[in-house]
Amino acid sequence: MIMDLMQDLRRTCYCGEVTKAGETVVVGGFVQKVRNLGNLIFIDLRDRTGIVQLAFNDQTDRAIFEKAASCHSEYVLLAKGVVAERSSINKDMKTGAVEVLVDDLRVLSKAQTPPFAITDETKTNEELRLKYRYLDLRRAPLQHNLMMRHKIALAAREYFYANNFIEIETPMMMKSTPEGARDYLIPSRVHNGKFYALPQSPQIYKQLLMVAGMDRYIQIARCFRDEDLRADRQPEFTQIDLEMSFVDVEDILQLTEGFVKYLFQKVLHMDITTPLPRMTYQEAMERYGSDKPDTRFGMELQDLSDTVKDVDFMVFRSALEAGGSVRAIVAKNAASVLTRKEIDKLTEKAKGIGAKGLAFIRWNDEKPTCSFAKFLPEGKLDEILSRLDCAKGDVVLIVADKNKVTLPVLGALRLEVAKKLDLIPEGKFNFLWITQFPFFEWNEDTQHWDAMHHPFTMPMDECLPYLDSDPARVTAKAFDLVLNGTELSSGSIRITDYELQEKMFQALGLTDEEIEAKFGFLVEAYHYGAPPHGGLGIGLDRLAMVMLQAESLRDVVAFPKVQNASELMSACPAPVDAESLDVLGIQVTHSEDDE
Amino acid sequence: MIMDLMQDLRRTCYCGEVTKAGETVVVGGFVQKVRNLGNLIFIDLRDRTGIVQLAFNDQTDRAIFEKAASCHSEYVLLAKGVVAERSSINKDMKTGAVEVLVDDLRVLSKAQTPPFAITDETKTNEELRLKYRYLDLRRAPLQHNLMMRHKIALAAREYFYANNFIEIETPMMMKSTPEGARDYLIPSRVHNGKFYALPQSPQIYKQLLMVAGMDRYIQIARCFRDEDLRADRQPEFTQIDLEMSFVDVEDILQLTEGFVKYLFQKVLHMDITTPLPRMTYQEAMERYGSDKPDTRFGMELQDLSDTVKDVDFMVFRSALEAGGSVRAIVAKNAASVLTRKEIDKLTEKAKGIGAKGLAFIRWNDEKPTCSFAKFLPEGKLDEILSRLDCAKGDVVLIVADKNKVTLPVLGALRLEVAKKLDLIPEGKFNFLWITQFPFFEWNEDTQHWDAMHHPFTMPMDECLPYLDSDPARVTAKAFDLVLNGTELSSGSIRITDYELQEKMFQALGLTDEEIEAKFGFLVEAYHYGAPPHGGLGIGLDRLAMVMLQAESLRDVVAFPKVQNASELMSACPAPVDAESLDVLGIQVTHSEDDE
Repeated sequence: MIMDLMQDLRRTCYCGEVTKAGETVVVGGFVQKVRNLGNLIFIDLRDRTGIVQLAFNDQTDRAIFEKAASCHSEYVLLAKGVVAERSSINKDMKTGAVEVLVDDLRVLSKAQTPPFAITDETKTNEELRLKYRYLDLRRAPLQHNLMMRHKIALAAREYFYANNFIEIETPMMMKSTPEGARDYLIPSRVHNGKFYALPQSPQIYKQLLMVAGMDRYIQIARCFRDEDLRADRQPEFTQIDLEMSFVDVEDILQLTEGFVKYLFQKVLHMDITTPLPRMTYQEAMERYGSDKPDTRFGMELQDLSDTVKDVDFMVFRSALEAGGSVRAIVAKNAASVLTRKEIDKLTEKAKGIGAKGLAFIRWNDEKPTCSFAKFLPEGKLDEILSRLDCAKGDVVLIVADKNKVTLPVLGALRLEVAKKLDLIPEGKFNFLWITQFPFFEWNEDTQHWDAMHHPFTMPMDECLPYLDSDPARVTAKAFDLVLNGTELSSGSIRITDYELQEKMFQALGLTDEEIEAKFGFLVEAYHYGAPPHGGLGIGLDRLAMVMLQAESLRDVVAFPKVQNASELMSACPAPVDAESLDVLGIQVTHSEDDE
Repeated sequence: MIMDLMQDLRRTCYCGEVTKAGETVVVGGFVQKVRNLGNLIFIDLRDRTGIVQLAFNDQTDRAIFEKAASCHSEYVLLAKGVVAERSSINKDMKTGAVEVLVDDLRVLSKAQTPPFAITDETKTNEELRLKYRYLDLRRAPLQHNLMMRHKIALAAREYFYANNFIEIETPMMMKSTPEGARDYLIPSRVHNGKFYALPQSPQIYKQLLMVAGMDRYIQIARCFRDEDLRADRQPEFTQIDLEMSFVDVEDILQLTEGFVKYLFQKVLHMDITTPLPRMTYQEAMERYGSDKPDTRFGMELQDLSDTVKDVDFMVFRSALEAGGSVRAIVAKNAASVLTRKEIDKLTEKAKGIGAKGLAFIRWNDEKPTCSFAKFLPEGKLDEILSRLDCAKGDVVLIVADKNKVTLPVLGALRLEVAKKLDLIPEGKFNFLWITQFPFFEWNEDTQHWDAMHHPFTMPMDECLPYLDSDPARVTAKAFDLVLNGTELSSGSIRITDYELQEKMFQALGLTDEEIEAKFGFLVEAYHYGAPPHGGLGIGLDRLAMVMLQAESLRDVVAFPKVQNASELMSACPAPVDAESLDVLGIQVTHSEDDE
């Protein structure tokens, strides 16, 4: 295939930058569209900055004109010419007032017809687009996303570098440690039978950097979790990872708020008001049924326990007697959307996530329909409606159970209903700190207290005396940053006392031998002096997704994997040859292809 | 262990920033040294910026004085006080003119005596220091290295971002591809029997980003190679990875030179003259016996073939008859250092790397000693010495063989001798481009031509016609950047023609089926239009090592691995439990612990 060579011709500017008539420019890019009118040819040439129109007319050298006529979509061209004003101005294009009268044209690469057109909007199914990811990435919205993601990471580095953070790279091949999810493992060739693990986060290394006196650390770090993928997960993801010394919770929150402000100003030219709102974990759970509430809309949870405590309805009574609660959300003016059928669907959903059922009041007609009307004494329904500030048109959804059930179930229904009712405003960015997480969580199965965070989190100063005597009372120096209902970031002040650290590992159920084998080096480090320190990890992919209002993480990752953790373009993972496994001292005992 | 809490006391500046008397400051850090004079206590407090002296005297509150008296090395303190001028000024310290008269002191962490002292210079063996890496990293030289490495990466981002490069993250879990070294593999849990590989470089992805029209890509990317480690290798290393569209070799060289200039100015405040010197591969081999010559000293190779062609010395004659050469280096004034014994050592070294032997002339006494004197006709020795411009005191080392042997052997001896003679100047940075690499390399074993670079490298335009007819004549659009004899960077213009690309894979010995299975997606991509593109990867670790004049990569990597690819601090790699392997569908067939 003989193509033109660039030889000495070099691009002088990007397509989107061609706006000044009279200049001679050289532009390069992909053919978006060819319009051949016989004696006139127009080619829309596209690069990552936009599109410019190339024009060929009866003044054009015949050889060049013929070459232009031979071009098709996605051919790669380099074109030189004088910029001229266009006869018909296209106001939708940055370069719509001009065109390039081409006097030198190089066809650098031909293209066969792509499996889908390179257009901003597309109806092509995602699977095909992922297989040809390099073509999908030619589409302007994805190019925009990657360029904006670059800017987000840049803003993070600018801000934290200016605040004395130093970027330090920590190992990707590390020791397998239990951090909540499953590790990806790497068999060692030099040490057969032993394995490295990919980091779930640089947690231990960044803490050791504080012990090493590096004072303030940042890394935009790749992290890996071998989990079954949900829609918003990738097996590898990126974290703006931070750790700093001589700080307490408040210092970290303030610094992070400064970052949020800087970031949104820089990237979206938007002013975020700081300090950001804060809410304790308990308040978030009681008001929104979630530790990552989306506060862009109301529909808060309301506690009906007092109002219905004397109602002789078994479902309510048994919940209250067991120390639980009866709680409700009110969907205003929702009766026409939330039909009985829709409420049945919500009931199924509620059951699917642990509720025994869903009670409701639907006020569509003159009189409200109440699923538990027959248990209510005279006037009780009115009392409930009045307590909930209901009016005609509203729908009330009620869950009665232990708080561990009522709160999250109503929290989930709240989100579901808001989507159905289209209550969530676009273009709004609601940040929220969640603070004062409980330190321990009672584990019914093992009948002991589990650490609710990773085992490196410090208890609040004032709770230190209750660690043994009253674990339920202990709250953690832990905090989450939530944006529009997405958990962007999780952080804490770390334990720096080796005795407390050992105790936390024991609380995780590790034996002394296991602690020594897995974390001995970390515990030992705290014998040699450690400044108080803490930090957080900000999910870069999620941050980009929410900021860019993308629908999926796949829209802000260059080469994403799909739900079953495979990459469709290169067909990875893939089998490897026997020799490769042999030198690693392993063999495959079970293969999916056998099935 | 009850320690003081920080409570509301916060650091106001770093230790190294305390210089102005009269101010009240709060500093935090590690105790470097305590000097207790009874009624006076001085504590040197250290953080990453330097050391400041804390002073406690008879004005000091007794409780604080007692606390100060209880401190030992590596305790972590937070201290508040007024900065005062010192009575005895220490000119070696940035803060040597002042001290802090402490009026509030928190002992935040105690420390037991570390296994080695935290001092700039250390004689502690490296193994112990790597086990306690978090302590070794407290030493100022290593802190300095990490901070400078941060600055180097920052300068790279600044420069390339300013030149329209966008940072894009490519996958770490990818398909295993033959890129020269062995891949690290990751067994898949979801797809038992299949594996991901860690990237040896983002090569394929960055090329696909060019096909995707991203135009200019940068990533400071972690790369992985499962090789037997030499002194200057790490299993994971970092590359300033670049790729750009619509460019040829010259564009990349110029842009890179701009970076080198910017980097050295920014980080070392040093002016590097550009354009950087260039040398073809062939010239480098003939003059220095290396494709990464250290040009900080001379001692170039000299060709004696003509001079000795009529000498009846079997070693010379058979080399010349086989199309080889007789070449020499001259170590000036080296006769006293390069004794017969030393020359014997060099001979062993030469043999170890492929030479049959080493001939020499050593001119120590009035008359030179020549190892092949008996084969020389009258006057020939003088002719040789004159040809080599030798004088009394010089030593000549001669190798006769095929060029494939003479050149690299003398290249290696040149370096060895230069070290012995201490010829290599410090503080000098000699850059050199090596260009016009041969495209193919004749493989004696397989009796066909191998690609000398990775299989994505483009031949020079003018060589395209000879690809089939005269492979030896083809040179590549490939280039290396060498700094002080270290290969910093390797780059090329890539093949964008799918027919040529397939041909290159075939030349690698891949069958059509293998090409399809491993690289099908890449070859297919070139069917849809690809701009001409090229790029390079600059080894960040090596760059930092050479710039900072560190002795080892381990001195510029926070948590390095040792030669057998293990990390001594965390004892990694490590065994994992059976369940972890079971879900991956693999088992260990050979364990080093069995041996």
